[in-house]
Amino acid sequence: MVIGGDAAGMSAASQARRRRDPGDLEIVAFEQGRFTSYSACGIPYWIGGSVGGPDELVARSPEEHRKQGIDVRIRTRVTAIDLDSRTVHACDLEAGHEYDEHFDCLVYASGSVPIRPPIPGIDAAGVFGVQTLGDGAVLRDELDDSVRRVVIIGGGYIGLEIAEACQVRGLDVTVVDKAATPVGTFDPDIGSFIADAVRGMGISMILSDGAAEIETGSSGRAVAVHTEAGRRLPADLVVLGLGVRPNVSLAEEAGIPLGTSGGIAVDNRMRTQVEGVWAAGDCVESVHRLSGRRVVVALGTHANKQGRVVGINIGGGYATFPGVIGTAVTKVCDLEVARTGMSEAEADAAGFCYLTTAVDSTTRAGYFPGAEPIRTKLLAEKRTGRLLGAQIVGREGAAKRIDVLATAIWNEMHVDEILSLDLSYAPPFAPVWDPVLIAARKAFETVEADSRK
Amino acid sequence: MVIGGDAAGMSAASQARRRRDPGDLEIVAFEQGRFTSYSACGIPYWIGGSVGGPDELVARSPEEHRKQGIDVRIRTRVTAIDLDSRTVHACDLEAGHEYDEHFDCLVYASGSVPIRPPIPGIDAAGVFGVQTLGDGAVLRDELDDSVRRVVIIGGGYIGLEIAEACQVRGLDVTVVDKAATPVGTFDPDIGSFIADAVRGMGISMILSDGAAEIETGSSGRAVAVHTEAGRRLPADLVVLGLGVRPNVSLAEEAGIPLGTSGGIAVDNRMRTQVEGVWAAGDCVESVHRLSGRRVVVALGTHANKQGRVVGINIGGGYATFPGVIGTAVTKVCDLEVARTGMSEAEADAAGFCYLTTAVDSTTRAGYFPGAEPIRTKLLAEKRTGRLLGAQIVGREGAAKRIDVLATAIWNEMHVDEILSLDLSYAPPFAPVWDPVLIAARKAFETVEADSRK
Repeated sequence: MVIGGDAAGMSAASQARRRRDPGDLEIVAFEQGRFTSYSACGIPYWIGGSVGGPDELVARSPEEHRKQGIDVRIRTRVTAIDLDSRTVHACDLEAGHEYDEHFDCLVYASGSVPIRPPIPGIDAAGVFGVQTLGDGAVLRDELDDSVRRVVIIGGGYIGLEIAEACQVRGLDVTVVDKAATPVGTFDPDIGSFIADAVRGMGISMILSDGAAEIETGSSGRAVAVHTEAGRRLPADLVVLGLGVRPNVSLAEEAGIPLGTSGGIAVDNRMRTQVEGVWAAGDCVESVHRLSGRRVVVALGTHANKQGRVVGINIGGGYATFPGVIGTAVTKVCDLEVARTGMSEAEADAAGFCYLTTAVDSTTRAGYFPGAEPIRTKLLAEKRTGRLLGAQIVGREGAAKRIDVLATAIWNEMHVDEILSLDLSYAPPFAPVWDPVLIAARKAFETVEADSRK
Repeated sequence: MVIGGDAAGMSAASQARRRRDPGDLEIVAFEQGRFTSYSACGIPYWIGGSVGGPDELVARSPEEHRKQGIDVRIRTRVTAIDLDSRTVHACDLEAGHEYDEHFDCLVYASGSVPIRPPIPGIDAAGVFGVQTLGDGAVLRDELDDSVRRVVIIGGGYIGLEIAEACQVRGLDVTVVDKAATPVGTFDPDIGSFIADAVRGMGISMILSDGAAEIETGSSGRAVAVHTEAGRRLPADLVVLGLGVRPNVSLAEEAGIPLGTSGGIAVDNRMRTQVEGVWAAGDCVESVHRLSGRRVVVALGTHANKQGRVVGINIGGGYATFPGVIGTAVTKVCDLEVARTGMSEAEADAAGFCYLTTAVDSTTRAGYFPGAEPIRTKLLAEKRTGRLLGAQIVGREGAAKRIDVLATAIWNEMHVDEILSLDLSYAPPFAPVWDPVLIAARKAFETVEADSRK
């Protein structure tokens, strides 16, 4: 039995189905929305108009899953889990009837929910989170001709992606964020590039100032956001871009233990601490391979991998999820930004001493048409030179280079090893020293100079 | 004393200069051409017109090097090395005078020379190799209005890049290659994509048929290429694209030992077997980290790294060159192709048993505008699943992903580890399973299925 019909849950279901026949293993999946296996990450582009809609964003529909022998029940909410009787209590939201269903083996894949800070007016009409494809549909419907001004609370990945989408639609967009620079998973020096890019496309960005209250009009609908510093930002629509938290309420009530991070605690095979209960996706915590800490990282790519691991294990195979290193990428207008490993704040918190270096280069040979700027910042451990983190900011062709550094971190490489890597070179693709190698060389020189002190 | 003023030699000179003052270390560099520190890889783009010329391709001119305290002597050919007296014999090609110069420490960085097969007519006027910036200038001058038909002998990297450049200039281009598919460092299945792309842009490609003779006209100039199968290919200009071999004649005559591959034998610090004599760049052999064999790989990126290693060591520091894994990338028209590790032929020769898989995917989320096809072929070792080689063919955004697989091979990763890598994901940059991960997953499944046999 699977709770949650998106990436993690349905990957688990599909993998288990591939390994065990319907006669041997019955699979039921509950999904409270109408869609299964969709790309939530694509929603901003649907809103912005560059992607067509649910048909394009759904990788596999409920019907397609049913054809594979998975009993998908959409518009059905699980309201309770009873671990003693091994049953869930389900509510068919369309027909309105409730029923219990027995399980031998449970996959908890309930995803995440947008963070809604307890400020006055947060629950008013006209205030939207963007999490599910259903949310996206609602928001798109709202963005009719009556809407001209959009205020986005929070300048994280989703906040900025939605801001850009609204800007593309010709709306007047303001982003407000408590921090001094947007996207807090980046160091402030990289964040300031992001802020410049956002402003450069005509989006207002108010930093170091959080939302304090949402003002509602006579109809009860949000009409403005008031900030802590006393600004009043008129809004026809308010979008929450404050990130997400794991959707663990059902698990908590049932007694499935959470970890220190607030996500569901799982082992390497994605088993919870309750026999026969598995969990995967945005609702679980993962091991950060560098800090050793438990972290919750809500990303479709992890959800897919974790779901696969669950499905293989339930199917009788053996698979593990080896943890994360915090890799992420996004695009803000023409600016590409990416990160992996630890930021300065994370490295500080984990107790590492490190040196930082930043190097400017180009995505292709400097003389080659289409060469774009790329800045690569590295955090290398003091003395050892082990790579602890990397951040890239640049234009077309810049960001995906983070994957090389992610693979290097994964393998615990030191910057002096990285600078010798045999990476591909030809003028249309890189300078003769790839930006990644130049950055490693500079970091190595910095570590060496520091060691002589 | 440095012989050869391009990437390897001048990197060595610059690094040594950074570490030791002119009062402590005198540096003389001999270069027979007019240019130093240039990008030979950029020559095809100069010929094609997308790059301006020597000013853009030269990273550092003789004057700039002199300002750094390096005595660069251009248009000066070293004609002999006497290891007993520690002198070189040099010939100033402009003034015509010859002289001996003493060295304490020698850096041999003479690069490579185009392969010229011993076929009749190969030395005729109108037959060109493209190796130095000087060669590029000559070829450009030749491509005047009287030239309409160009025949290129050899369909390797340089051959195809020159073919494209000539095609861009509106010429009638034919490539002739002995092998059944072009660019022999790729497996034939990938090579056939390359052949299709080349033909798709209107270049004639004759495969499985080598050049047998170059016919010369009454003026002694090449007028046609005759093939082994009896074709006569009329040509106003013939370009050799048969690859290069290490330029080791001086070293051989002097008694600097070569290795099994024909390149100069060096140790990890780039020392030859003669005390005080170093070598770097296209003329040396490197260790292939997978096969353990000595190989010659003529690539600017290795030359730069090796030169740096030499310069640091001569400068009193410690650096090593840890070998190569055969990474390469090129662009043929809109087709991007890249490889790393071993091809099937190389793996066979090195005695590995392996399984191959190929997976088609897209460079971005399938629904995202600009998603382009990408095919990833992997060679994984039988039983262990260790990644032995990778080849990528696709459109924009495909090829540079090879660097992730190169880093994985460098770290001796197995395909089941690779599929768990925390690579960056967002719809403008990748599907939720990056093509690299999908390829690793498929390879893992193949290795697993094979192990059950």
